[in-house]
Amino acid sequence: MATQRILDFLATRRPDGPCLVLDLDVVRDNYNAFEKALPNSKIYYAVKANPAPEILRLLAQLGSCFDTASVAEVEMAMNAGATPHRISYGNTIKKERDIARAYELGIRLFAVDCVEEVEKIARVAPGAQVFCRVLTDGEGAEWPLSRKFGCVPAMAVDVLRHAKALGLDAYGVSFHVGSQQTDLVAWDRALADAKAVFSALAQEGITLRMVNMGGGFPTRYLKDVPTAQAYGQAIFDALSKHFGNCIPETIIEPGRGMVGNAGVIKSEVVLISRKADNDNVRWVYLDIGKFGGLAETMDEAIRYPIVTPRDGDAAEPCVLAGPTCDSADVLYEKAPYPLPLSLTIGDEVLIEGTGAYTTTYSAVAFNGFEPLRSYVI
Amino acid sequence: MATQRILDFLATRRPDGPCLVLDLDVVRDNYNAFEKALPNSKIYYAVKANPAPEILRLLAQLGSCFDTASVAEVEMAMNAGATPHRISYGNTIKKERDIARAYELGIRLFAVDCVEEVEKIARVAPGAQVFCRVLTDGEGAEWPLSRKFGCVPAMAVDVLRHAKALGLDAYGVSFHVGSQQTDLVAWDRALADAKAVFSALAQEGITLRMVNMGGGFPTRYLKDVPTAQAYGQAIFDALSKHFGNCIPETIIEPGRGMVGNAGVIKSEVVLISRKADNDNVRWVYLDIGKFGGLAETMDEAIRYPIVTPRDGDAAEPCVLAGPTCDSADVLYEKAPYPLPLSLTIGDEVLIEGTGAYTTTYSAVAFNGFEPLRSYVI
Repeated sequence: MATQRILDFLATRRPDGPCLVLDLDVVRDNYNAFEKALPNSKIYYAVKANPAPEILRLLAQLGSCFDTASVAEVEMAMNAGATPHRISYGNTIKKERDIARAYELGIRLFAVDCVEEVEKIARVAPGAQVFCRVLTDGEGAEWPLSRKFGCVPAMAVDVLRHAKALGLDAYGVSFHVGSQQTDLVAWDRALADAKAVFSALAQEGITLRMVNMGGGFPTRYLKDVPTAQAYGQAIFDALSKHFGNCIPETIIEPGRGMVGNAGVIKSEVVLISRKADNDNVRWVYLDIGKFGGLAETMDEAIRYPIVTPRDGDAAEPCVLAGPTCDSADVLYEKAPYPLPLSLTIGDEVLIEGTGAYTTTYSAVAFNGFEPLRSYVI
Repeated sequence: MATQRILDFLATRRPDGPCLVLDLDVVRDNYNAFEKALPNSKIYYAVKANPAPEILRLLAQLGSCFDTASVAEVEMAMNAGATPHRISYGNTIKKERDIARAYELGIRLFAVDCVEEVEKIARVAPGAQVFCRVLTDGEGAEWPLSRKFGCVPAMAVDVLRHAKALGLDAYGVSFHVGSQQTDLVAWDRALADAKAVFSALAQEGITLRMVNMGGGFPTRYLKDVPTAQAYGQAIFDALSKHFGNCIPETIIEPGRGMVGNAGVIKSEVVLISRKADNDNVRWVYLDIGKFGGLAETMDEAIRYPIVTPRDGDAAEPCVLAGPTCDSADVLYEKAPYPLPLSLTIGDEVLIEGTGAYTTTYSAVAFNGFEPLRSYVI
């Protein structure tokens, strides 16, 4: 997944230390694929996945909208050229003064998942549109979402009724099927829940108009994933099944699916050793680890493809670890990673599919190591 | 554990957003307590725990040495006034060019745990002192160290023999009993291993002279921990037991034990909600979480004391979570945290014992949130 442009950049520039190189052509292709697969949905790029200004500018030019998690991200999207009506403040956890600042900046679309958040918005963002996030079970996702965001559908009805009563625009429902979701049925289950909220409120005369179907669109790591086209078809079928000929406006929020496969991290093998003469597992230490940008290896959740200059030689399972003096900075140990026996200290390796959720996760200075550098080409 | 100076600072300055406030008086007291408890050991402060320049300057003035994890940390210690002979490059995972840079800066003391690392040092740091880290079982530690660092004692003998053969000074052995270690017997077991390496090499005419006993000294979170004095006595007894009247030079590397209890994070309650009407657990969202500095709540390992303005009121177990749109940003869920029922959105809470392993763990910009600010007073 390292494009020729990325390989050429690395060969020419030879940057020292670990770095992410991200190819904008891939982002453009991904955006076009989403647009084609879901022509009736608005695309809100999840800025948190990778807020590099070059990415935001490209997407703004292509017509994308933006899902933001903080006032800082709202400002990044606006700096990239997005007008406020193309920006959603999608974090359900917001300080009231941050809601007020976003409202001053022109933002009119906010996520909620409880009446307490509705009340904050009613106080400082009068008349704004709100959508309520409902809990999904996250089944089938490689990075499932716990219960942190959303409420049960029955409570969403209360939340949106309360929003309406406080003068807000009860706009719709959102859900998130879990990041790196490869089970297409997940959207069907969530859309059934969304429809139930629509119906319950319709009986009270409140007409919701929008379903935010969130992210979850996967990027290819070691296993093939369904195409955007397949997702589009499954989602369209589920929408038709549950909403008949009254399909509401829809939003999708791809993050990983938009930029994950556009980036490659270049890293270097710092050390290869064993812990005892009779150890049958080697330890391979890279110059990047859990605190340098690969936080999604937490619990070995995301398993990145790794390309070495010795691929094809006989391989052996290795424990893969980062460079810090932190014993938690181990990437793959429960399921050791097969790497060539001929791999040598100093070899450069490419960690693919690292365009999303890497640079900004990077620790600011742990062990004195600088945060992950990024080149967007 | 919030000192009056910290409380006064917060009351006067009223900083906006989450921040760490660290009291240097507590660091001074901790340094003096270590010096008194282990008068024959050299103190190497583990810079990675908190590299704030004010802390490094104070410790340099007090006569501390420094354990560093990278060239950047070597430079920080030197900028704070430490001469190179007071600095150890204690990371066993080093690029050869970083060893060379440290050697150019005057560093002569390096950690190793395999022959491959010895060979790098022999090439670019001729004649340097090396100590070999041996694996310990980490039993009794709240943040145990996995097998990432160190080798079995039998291999340490090979490693140090190899160092000697390559013209390096085979100086000694190191171990680390696991961070936040509260079982005093852990040092006894590790010193037995160290002594075995000393004895095996003595038989070959190689005389080791130093034992680096690492860190592991705890800070008080929710439970009382043994005093520095108790650690000192236990370690002295174990040294006498294993080394008789030939006690070697010793080094300790406190990090958490030096600065953990000196710092307090001020945070704000952003949201309190339930996921369903009949939910018996409330969710309390703070403006700091796993990616804003509280990374050591990973797997709920470290449980920080939290002080609220409503303490004393009736309490109820809560799930505690951070402010990001990341569902992994949950602090305590498996073991919910009791907090007052009267706790209110906007309340300020103090997270105590956060002087170590917070600021530098902080993500550089995840979700657009700035890294944890720090005030050293």
